[in-house]
Amino acid sequence: VNISQITLSHIQGTPLYKQLAAAFMAAIERGEVQPGEQLPSERVLVQRLGISRTTVVTAYQELEAQGFVCRQVGRGTIVCAQARDTQTSFAWQGKVARGALRTSDPTLRLLSSISSDPTVISFAAGIAALDLFPAQLFQEITARTWRDQAKLIIELGPTEGLLFFRQAIATMMGVHPSQILALSGSQQGIDLIARCLIDPGDSVLLDAPGYLGAIQIFQAVGAHLVGWDSAHADMNELEDLIVRYRPKLLYTTPTFHNPTGRTISRQTRLHLLELAARYHLPIIEDDPYRDLAFNIKPPPTLLSLDTQRLVIYLGTFSKTLASGLRLGWLAAPEAIVNHLTLIKGRSDLFTTSLQQLVVAQLLMSGIYKQHVHTMQSEYAKRQTVMLRELRRSSPSDLIRSCPVQGGLYLWCQLGYGIDAQVALQKALQVGVAFLPGEVFYPDGRGHHELRLCFSAIPPPQIIEGVRRLTQALSGLRSYAGQERYPIL
Amino acid sequence: VNISQITLSHIQGTPLYKQLAAAFMAAIERGEVQPGEQLPSERVLVQRLGISRTTVVTAYQELEAQGFVCRQVGRGTIVCAQARDTQTSFAWQGKVARGALRTSDPTLRLLSSISSDPTVISFAAGIAALDLFPAQLFQEITARTWRDQAKLIIELGPTEGLLFFRQAIATMMGVHPSQILALSGSQQGIDLIARCLIDPGDSVLLDAPGYLGAIQIFQAVGAHLVGWDSAHADMNELEDLIVRYRPKLLYTTPTFHNPTGRTISRQTRLHLLELAARYHLPIIEDDPYRDLAFNIKPPPTLLSLDTQRLVIYLGTFSKTLASGLRLGWLAAPEAIVNHLTLIKGRSDLFTTSLQQLVVAQLLMSGIYKQHVHTMQSEYAKRQTVMLRELRRSSPSDLIRSCPVQGGLYLWCQLGYGIDAQVALQKALQVGVAFLPGEVFYPDGRGHHELRLCFSAIPPPQIIEGVRRLTQALSGLRSYAGQERYPIL
Repeated sequence: VNISQITLSHIQGTPLYKQLAAAFMAAIERGEVQPGEQLPSERVLVQRLGISRTTVVTAYQELEAQGFVCRQVGRGTIVCAQARDTQTSFAWQGKVARGALRTSDPTLRLLSSISSDPTVISFAAGIAALDLFPAQLFQEITARTWRDQAKLIIELGPTEGLLFFRQAIATMMGVHPSQILALSGSQQGIDLIARCLIDPGDSVLLDAPGYLGAIQIFQAVGAHLVGWDSAHADMNELEDLIVRYRPKLLYTTPTFHNPTGRTISRQTRLHLLELAARYHLPIIEDDPYRDLAFNIKPPPTLLSLDTQRLVIYLGTFSKTLASGLRLGWLAAPEAIVNHLTLIKGRSDLFTTSLQQLVVAQLLMSGIYKQHVHTMQSEYAKRQTVMLRELRRSSPSDLIRSCPVQGGLYLWCQLGYGIDAQVALQKALQVGVAFLPGEVFYPDGRGHHELRLCFSAIPPPQIIEGVRRLTQALSGLRSYAGQERYPIL
Repeated sequence: VNISQITLSHIQGTPLYKQLAAAFMAAIERGEVQPGEQLPSERVLVQRLGISRTTVVTAYQELEAQGFVCRQVGRGTIVCAQARDTQTSFAWQGKVARGALRTSDPTLRLLSSISSDPTVISFAAGIAALDLFPAQLFQEITARTWRDQAKLIIELGPTEGLLFFRQAIATMMGVHPSQILALSGSQQGIDLIARCLIDPGDSVLLDAPGYLGAIQIFQAVGAHLVGWDSAHADMNELEDLIVRYRPKLLYTTPTFHNPTGRTISRQTRLHLLELAARYHLPIIEDDPYRDLAFNIKPPPTLLSLDTQRLVIYLGTFSKTLASGLRLGWLAAPEAIVNHLTLIKGRSDLFTTSLQQLVVAQLLMSGIYKQHVHTMQSEYAKRQTVMLRELRRSSPSDLIRSCPVQGGLYLWCQLGYGIDAQVALQKALQVGVAFLPGEVFYPDGRGHHELRLCFSAIPPPQIIEGVRRLTQALSGLRSYAGQERYPIL
């Protein structure tokens, strides 16, 4: 490749890494670089083009994801031997269903590619402190389970989950095991509920800002999304919205809410349940953060306060143990658990039994409870470090946020009219990532907000990450109102 | 409970176990048995009521599933302390979406409950020979993977699957890794494809008879199902159906077809691809049995013969290793892989990395190939035993079937007009299970057909199971044309 022919433009609407990837793709397709040939090293490109290492890494990842190159240890980045199928291309796009075209926001997918880039300090994805994961213990229990229960692990498992797991969860929640459905992560629960309850055109009331995965799922099934600011919990507004839109369900994260960290009081919970009962409105209580309280005891779950059996509760081990386990559950009245179980049976038959057996043992032995205590104090500490560094390294009007009493996130407001998407581009260039506010709204608000996850990485990296972030933001003070790039 | 007051009727339309369960539910709800009280033992009920042990076990399972009783080791079957929520019941049924009401056949779910009943010899579910699963080796690789790759196991994985896994699969299939999507079992692939390509009202062409999971998924998304007898592969009929119904896709299992065991020839494959190209028809090639050939080499996959990029290929490790792994993959043109990956991201974020890492190591080390050889010869042997026993223990006009050249199943025709659903009731009473023919048809045909899975259980049990089966069938010869019970 003739590097001197590559021209990148800082002011063009396309991110630098995309421009770089496109330049290589063009060279490969023109035959200027042949299969088996090596592309320039990252170092060379950084020097010759005057761009950041992150830009080069991201460009090469893009090329790899699209099958143009493969990366081989000791050989660098090699143009692929298999040519891409540019010849006859079947018109797949024309075959895609209306339903599947409703949403195509790849944010969830990109989150994981950001977090696997070692050069980026990521405050983006909401993940547990994996450095504190009890790997040794987990491995021992896994080995024991293979030894004692191999048959259970390998055979066809029940769609509703193993009774052993459901009993452990039911005991913890004070319900009957028949009210529990094991899930491949609580994301699956939202998906099953959407498929079970929503017809295209139905209205759904949900937190705004709120969990982006829920927004995407309800959009994909064709729901009309109605946002409610649950963090401020204006009950008159809620009743108005219910009367006006006749929603099919209300989706909310009432405890250590994502992204704001706010918790709805016991009084408001009772009021919410009363409204739901009056208007026959099912409530989805998404509760991934309950166990992660810092020195306070959160109010009871909506599920436990509900006398009308209208709450579907979602729980997960992703935020306390690890999202790699893909293990969550839902607790709900049997009538609806049965429907959801049928839909789950069609979508993945059942959730792996190994994870259920291992986690149930952690629950029953009390080890889980102990681990949760460790996580609580560590997350509290990490929040303190992040807040301290934010305050120390930037003027208070550049980025503002309030401490939270639990969960994983700081919800921040940007000053100087800085656009969070623009800030993200800048931040990625200096090796730090976060989620821009607008992905948390169904209606594109949140341009000057962003979410930082403080739980995922140890304090020294938090300090360095905040330094990079405030550096990126400081550089943008004078650019307020500049053109916006598309997400990432 | 006063056992003498329980009356069961053999001629009533309701299975005996349901009558028994209903009698206990009534007693519990009337308060005749109190929470914490013990129900009669299985032995006592068998003696006093003159029914089979299976009937009692099934009735107690039903009570347990519905939350009326729990079973405690050493204490037997206990009436639950938690009363069921019979008080205020929210009208959940009225909240269920039209889409979710389209199908409610619980066959897939029931399959696993049958297979976990130790008193029943099950030829029902299509599962691998778990007695030959390399548990020791698998456990060692799992332990090593935890030791060396703990971070990869617990962190957020990529939705498309780990590159390590995709590369292993891509090498095996001769495609590029970017054409591979890791799945939580190949069932998930069918579900993703249906959600991606089908709008309600679209027509779908599929094998009839064919895989029941596919029938249920396409029914659930509101497709109009058009059956084609792929085992006989009349290509003129196929073209007529395509022209007449303009299907959105064709779903087929061309190699060691489920349930018939038939394989479409290379010539017919080329013809099929030609028709698909002419009518712009995507093909879903579901290929779980390819590796399980007995002394023949099956024709190439449709994927490898396809020059138009219109095939989506589905593979799985459920039939060669174990369905408990929940690991499969799809191979397809990148354009459609990208769409499917977005939908998967919304439904369960990603598939557990541990299973991907362990299975990829089995693939790369050659151990998998070796294991598959073992399975091939063992499955061939089990088929021989089952066919021999069927022929030895019943007159040839009672149940007929042809040997297959690979896969897991014998497809059988019943004589004397015996209805397979009636036969299943009888069979369960004597402790043997199979799948009645009609679950494999989208239109309720197959009343006198049934499927036997020969791979799952060792020869001695096959012999006993066939003995029970032919005993049940023999008893039905004179009852031909009697009233039919609902499924199970």
